[in-house]
Amino acid sequence: MNKKLQIIEDHESSVRSYVRSFPAVFTKARGYRIWDEDGNEYIDFFAGAGALNYGHNEPAMKKKLVDYILDDGITHSLDKATDAKVEFIDKFNEVIMKPRNMDYKIMFPGPTGTNTVESALKIARKMTGRTDIVSFTNGFHGMTIGSLAVTGNSMKRKGAGIPLSHTVTMPYDNFVNDEKDTLDYFERFLEDNGSGVAIPAAVIFETVQGEGGINAASIEWMQRLERICREWGIMLIVDDVQAGVGRTGTFFSFEPAGIKPDVVCLSKSIGGYGLPLAITLIKPEFDKWKPGEHNGTFRGNNMAFVTATESLTYWEDPEFEKSVQAKAATVTDFLTNMIEKYPEMQGRLKGRGLMQGIASDVEGFSEKVAEHAFERYMIMETAGGHDEVFKLFPPINIDEEGLQAGLEIIELSIQDALKSMNLKKEAVTN
Amino acid sequence: MNKKLQIIEDHESSVRSYVRSFPAVFTKARGYRIWDEDGNEYIDFFAGAGALNYGHNEPAMKKKLVDYILDDGITHSLDKATDAKVEFIDKFNEVIMKPRNMDYKIMFPGPTGTNTVESALKIARKMTGRTDIVSFTNGFHGMTIGSLAVTGNSMKRKGAGIPLSHTVTMPYDNFVNDEKDTLDYFERFLEDNGSGVAIPAAVIFETVQGEGGINAASIEWMQRLERICREWGIMLIVDDVQAGVGRTGTFFSFEPAGIKPDVVCLSKSIGGYGLPLAITLIKPEFDKWKPGEHNGTFRGNNMAFVTATESLTYWEDPEFEKSVQAKAATVTDFLTNMIEKYPEMQGRLKGRGLMQGIASDVEGFSEKVAEHAFERYMIMETAGGHDEVFKLFPPINIDEEGLQAGLEIIELSIQDALKSMNLKKEAVTN
Amino acid sequence: MNKKLQIIEDHESSVRSYVRSFPAVFTKARGYRIWDEDGNEYIDFFAGAGALNYGHNEPAMKKKLVDYILDDGITHSLDKATDAKVEFIDKFNEVIMKPRNMDYKIMFPGPTGTNTVESALKIARKMTGRTDIVSFTNGFHGMTIGSLAVTGNSMKRKGAGIPLSHTVTMPYDNFVNDEKDTLDYFERFLEDNGSGVAIPAAVIFETVQGEGGINAASIEWMQRLERICREWGIMLIVDDVQAGVGRTGTFFSFEPAGIKPDVVCLSKSIGGYGLPLAITLIKPEFDKWKPGEHNGTFRGNNMAFVTATESLTYWEDPEFEKSVQAKAATVTDFLTNMIEKYPEMQGRLKGRGLMQGIASDVEGFSEKVAEHAFERYMIMETAGGHDEVFKLFPPINIDEEGLQAGLEIIELSIQDALKSMNLKKEAVTN
Amino acid sequence: MNKKLQIIEDHESSVRSYVRSFPAVFTKARGYRIWDEDGNEYIDFFAGAGALNYGHNEPAMKKKLVDYILDDGITHSLDKATDAKVEFIDKFNEVIMKPRNMDYKIMFPGPTGTNTVESALKIARKMTGRTDIVSFTNGFHGMTIGSLAVTGNSMKRKGAGIPLSHTVTMPYDNFVNDEKDTLDYFERFLEDNGSGVAIPAAVIFETVQGEGGINAASIEWMQRLERICREWGIMLIVDDVQAGVGRTGTFFSFEPAGIKPDVVCLSKSIGGYGLPLAITLIKPEFDKWKPGEHNGTFRGNNMAFVTATESLTYWEDPEFEKSVQAKAATVTDFLTNMIEKYPEMQGRLKGRGLMQGIASDVEGFSEKVAEHAFERYMIMETAGGHDEVFKLFPPINIDEEGLQAGLEIIELSIQDALKSMNLKKEAVTN
Repeated sequence: MNKKLQIIEDHESSVRSYVRSFPAVFTKARGYRIWDEDGNEYIDFFAGAGALNYGHNEPAMKKKLVDYILDDGITHSLDKATDAKVEFIDKFNEVIMKPRNMDYKIMFPGPTGTNTVESALKIARKMTGRTDIVSFTNGFHGMTIGSLAVTGNSMKRKGAGIPLSHTVTMPYDNFVNDEKDTLDYFERFLEDNGSGVAIPAAVIFETVQGEGGINAASIEWMQRLERICREWGIMLIVDDVQAGVGRTGTFFSFEPAGIKPDVVCLSKSIGGYGLPLAITLIKPEFDKWKPGEHNGTFRGNNMAFVTATESLTYWEDPEFEKSVQAKAATVTDFLTNMIEKYPEMQGRLKGRGLMQGIASDVEGFSEKVAEHAFERYMIMETAGGHDEVFKLFPPINIDEEGLQAGLEIIELSIQDALKSMNLKKEAVTN
Repeated sequence: MNKKLQIIEDHESSVRSYVRSFPAVFTKARGYRIWDEDGNEYIDFFAGAGALNYGHNEPAMKKKLVDYILDDGITHSLDKATDAKVEFIDKFNEVIMKPRNMDYKIMFPGPTGTNTVESALKIARKMTGRTDIVSFTNGFHGMTIGSLAVTGNSMKRKGAGIPLSHTVTMPYDNFVNDEKDTLDYFERFLEDNGSGVAIPAAVIFETVQGEGGINAASIEWMQRLERICREWGIMLIVDDVQAGVGRTGTFFSFEPAGIKPDVVCLSKSIGGYGLPLAITLIKPEFDKWKPGEHNGTFRGNNMAFVTATESLTYWEDPEFEKSVQAKAATVTDFLTNMIEKYPEMQGRLKGRGLMQGIASDVEGFSEKVAEHAFERYMIMETAGGHDEVFKLFPPINIDEEGLQAGLEIIELSIQDALKSMNLKKEAVTN
Repeated sequence: MNKKLQIIEDHESSVRSYVRSFPAVFTKARGYRIWDEDGNEYIDFFAGAGALNYGHNEPAMKKKLVDYILDDGITHSLDKATDAKVEFIDKFNEVIMKPRNMDYKIMFPGPTGTNTVESALKIARKMTGRTDIVSFTNGFHGMTIGSLAVTGNSMKRKGAGIPLSHTVTMPYDNFVNDEKDTLDYFERFLEDNGSGVAIPAAVIFETVQGEGGINAASIEWMQRLERICREWGIMLIVDDVQAGVGRTGTFFSFEPAGIKPDVVCLSKSIGGYGLPLAITLIKPEFDKWKPGEHNGTFRGNNMAFVTATESLTYWEDPEFEKSVQAKAATVTDFLTNMIEKYPEMQGRLKGRGLMQGIASDVEGFSEKVAEHAFERYMIMETAGGHDEVFKLFPPINIDEEGLQAGLEIIELSIQDALKSMNLKKEAVTN
Repeated sequence: MNKKLQIIEDHESSVRSYVRSFPAVFTKARGYRIWDEDGNEYIDFFAGAGALNYGHNEPAMKKKLVDYILDDGITHSLDKATDAKVEFIDKFNEVIMKPRNMDYKIMFPGPTGTNTVESALKIARKMTGRTDIVSFTNGFHGMTIGSLAVTGNSMKRKGAGIPLSHTVTMPYDNFVNDEKDTLDYFERFLEDNGSGVAIPAAVIFETVQGEGGINAASIEWMQRLERICREWGIMLIVDDVQAGVGRTGTFFSFEPAGIKPDVVCLSKSIGGYGLPLAITLIKPEFDKWKPGEHNGTFRGNNMAFVTATESLTYWEDPEFEKSVQAKAATVTDFLTNMIEKYPEMQGRLKGRGLMQGIASDVEGFSEKVAEHAFERYMIMETAGGHDEVFKLFPPINIDEEGLQAGLEIIELSIQDALKSMNLKKEAVTN
């Protein structure tokens, strides 16, 4: 084994995961490209699981960041005021909030997705005086006990070592089958006072479930969910950690549905450059925290503020969203074509925006596609309870050339997988 | 109000705290000094609550960091292998683990203190098949539900909005009174099978309780606690997030006790430069995680690896620890002198190493000292359930000049507080 | 107010309930008849909510009981062996178990329904090592915390004062609407490992939900539920406290479905005479209790053993079940006729066996029927989350005369209710 | 094996316990005497673990009971009003409450000890809006989940199969050692807002812990506990199920301390004759139950009301308490003498009133004494986490002859045990 990988093998905990699927030592990266220590160049359609929506080491952010550091800008400040923080707040408000007629207070919890979720659950329980949170099948919200309790994955849940409580899982859109609106169930549970399910403090959901299998809720489903919440006085939390910050084609993933969540969780790409940052947006009427009631050492990561502020520049240009949506359409066309062209993989299109993939009903197929892609120097991940989906997460600012190069490798990898799994005897010609 | 502070007032959540005690907008920092937008220079005896043990923007780390960024080093990689990560693991092993005869696997949970604690609790529950964790009065371990359940502070606990369970609180050293060894109590609960307290999965404790009032456990107490854990097959977790990385005069705060925890939690200053990073050290026999059983987007913060690696250079020089201990002795002498010189404040010496302070039995006094210090351009925090302690957290690499300058302001602030609270009519002359 | 009712008003807790609906002081009873202190004779179609299936003070049991007492038979023995206990065990085995090819161990928990349920949940958790129990909407299993956690009623649940956990509620047959088999939903939660619902230790259900609204599960639904449990290794518990002991026309209510529960809970009429008794039937392979692991002062109520043993004599005669079923058919015909004859009450037939009733969609109507029935000296109860069902619970050994007398009063009470609620202008003539 | 015991062996659950220690089939009983099927006569110093304080089949109660049954008095009535119930309430108020200046509402929960405890915990949580209950080491309160959560015994707790929560265990009087008042601990936990222990809804305790080892709290300890509760607004619950109804020499066991609990739990001997009954006494200001918020099928056990009412006649005579106290003094003298006379058993006197015993520090000794006593036709039980106590629970109305006969057997059994365990070579002569 490579000497550096050996060091990891010898000293890093067995909990490590991606280094197992992608056994290389990476050294440099830029945009959608990443290089390993041997100089191999990879196309990255993983994008840090949504933390690198602007690609690696985006030049404008990089410049601002280096200048800030050279200038001895504040690095760590807990939640004291700094120039970098004020600028972020101000620009976030001007560029993101105001044009969308959104009025939210910005909370800085610890700089991770699970921390924004934990803060959201806390404020919902505090404001309603209720304990239960409704989450959905195949939702993924984090690994700390509060967030894990609203996460569906059974392996992760068992990792808690304790029963997870104060939560109720309801079926996500299309969970049971295609015919039935799963919100009928939820509503019955609410309206029947013998249902055993109390009116919850909040509902938390992802508009597209990234880890759970790139499941996209329909616009109508989201709208009905909001109506139900309003009717019963339940707070509505959107966990936009993975689907937000442009991943689905709009800054917030819920914009097409026109809903107004009471709390929005953002992390991953909100820092712009891949630096840890998370924010929790809370409607002013619900922002009743006591000072310090939820705190954390790294709740102010100033370097991330600097790059986050710069990243918002993308959103000043109305063409940006359109370009992302155009690329999403390209991906949809491509995947639809793949499904038709390779019926042996029994594929179904999943997802929305630049968060799409194919669920293959052939056991093990999607994992094979990802493996072959890695052999072809592309980084791509699988999702879903049985890794039945291979998913495309290119940077949302990827150029046409990069996108096409990636799609090409994906088709070749599908062909590889069909071959290696003996799903197609003849070579594919196209 | 200052325009920038107004932006914070208008848009940041009411949960913000330090900006209330230190109402200035900070722009630059170096070592123990920090400047606000008006050019005022402050002495920082807060050190990011222990996240800035090497001071602000330490030059050697800064250089490495800027070079890394300019060179397009990997910023975000989840837990894929990167040069920066391998170097950190290797150097941590060589400089810290080996010389101390320590053999631990390194886990990278999310980059915050609460995340390393959550991972520690999980692995202890998984390895023992038990659910309960014993923590101690006035312990502070984090804000996510798992960590909050082992945190003592009632205001923070209520913030959960749900009952916190699967934990039992035992009295910390000297909690009840000075006469009684509180571990007698713990041991009785273990040995009596009718005690209502099950043998726990683990005990988690801080050697010095930073948030809880700078309470330092005695060496003997820690040693007995370890013996009890061994006797009953209970895993021993040291949360060294605040007291570790040199804060008490040795790299790990538990070194003087000679104990060998099964799990050690590190965060705050482990990144060196104030960047988010956390690691969980686990004895190899307990490192039975499944791949990905605990994960997180920012578990590999490469920039923090770069600065963390550089920060370990300090520890290659055996003189470094001695210098920290010498400064700690200076602080002890100073505080002892203050207590004697100003009996009106009814002070008691608290803490250990560069984590010391004075608990004043005069209600409100310690807060007054911190307020007056801020007027004199020093940043200093209080601790304890009623903010009854003012605490000195200078960078551990502070020079003699900086230390003396800080101590001088503290004495003046004590005098100010005595005056403003009318505890002493006559002006103090010294 | 009556002097005796005044004593209750003055000294009994406000938690009292039936004395409010039936404000009389009762003194004597026999069979389906009960008398108050003023000598008024009532027909009892309530039967102690299922605790008096053989009517009040059944003569054969009464004789045995008096002889036993006069003879200084053991009254209280904890779980020491007594003649009375051995005889009950023996006869229960001979008359009930053997002819039905059932092989179960008999456990004597405390002498109440909630106690047998608590013991059933414990043994299921112990045997599977899992924590969760699946119960169903509108299930009712008891008031102690373990049983209450599997009970649906929101008012009762709130009474706990703590969040109830380690349970998941699934929709009972026909809960959502008539079209959909609710077990599709349950099965999806089991088979999807991202559903957030762990494989439970056990499923607990009533074949007919007495308190929840006289909801009867279909035979097919019960059979499918059993198959699901077998497939997933989930223990199946039938709570037959109310529906058992002949109430639905067979000794056990689940006999028509041909299912073999792993655990069966019996109480109410198992003692025969209305004396406190409960038993838990456990398949031998699951009876792995340690001695005394679940105990209780009154787990051997010898007087109840005496009457219970005598009550089993009814079941020695194969005609007995048939007679109950014939009476059930009479009730079905009667209620069907009522629904057709009085469409203004918008009635729907509910239940099975001698556990039937009418759910009226007219708010408050069913309560009115019960009130008017009381004015006509009949005792009858309502059920369901909004008391929307009036239910007929005559003794199962009632004679034809008594049954007809009761049905007559019910029709008159329906007429009264229609009048008093102005649902029908004209007087009803029939 | 005896044929009847074989039936139990074959068909009763393995959870059975006392039939193992006392392997005989009992048929008749009167007063302190009980007979098995072979006509052997035993002295009963077990008294149904406190359920037979008036002995077996007390003649006056027996007569009333038989008359009631012959007269077709109401047997089962849920909580409808009956003559039998009204008479009990009235007499309980006149004979017990009024002379003691006590004003409480009487609640009838299910007819078992665990049920009165569950109701007590619920009302305390409801009234305070808090979730936690403080109980004490070695407390025993019942087997249903709510009561089990406040019970100390680890074997019983594990039987729950789920973590037991919303409770905190504090050290009972003398738990840690003799020097320290354990309430110092409790008070420190309450007064320090960083203690991790929230102000509880209630404290529940037994004045003498029957199952936990016949531990008697001192009068001062109980009084201080009450003061602490008052100071912090914590409800005080006395579980007098075992120690109440005269067992310690007064009707309520807490009378000598002069405390006024907010809630009192009674069961076991409250029914007088060994029939299932339980009551919960609640101060009127805390009796804020909604009708039916806690219910149960057997909450009105009329036969038990009849015998309970009659049993109260004992308490009309002021000499009765004195006679019990005199017998208690006899027992104290006897046990003190035994401890001195047989130092080899390393005995310590435990308990209070007619609830006393000897804790032997010789492992297994106390069990041996009980075994030998059974060989000598005496029924006597052990208590404590390691069965280290043999305990004397004669009926409180036992006559001098019966008491002396019992004590004699006990001394002989001690001698037997010393011999069979080879603790004393020489035969004892006395």
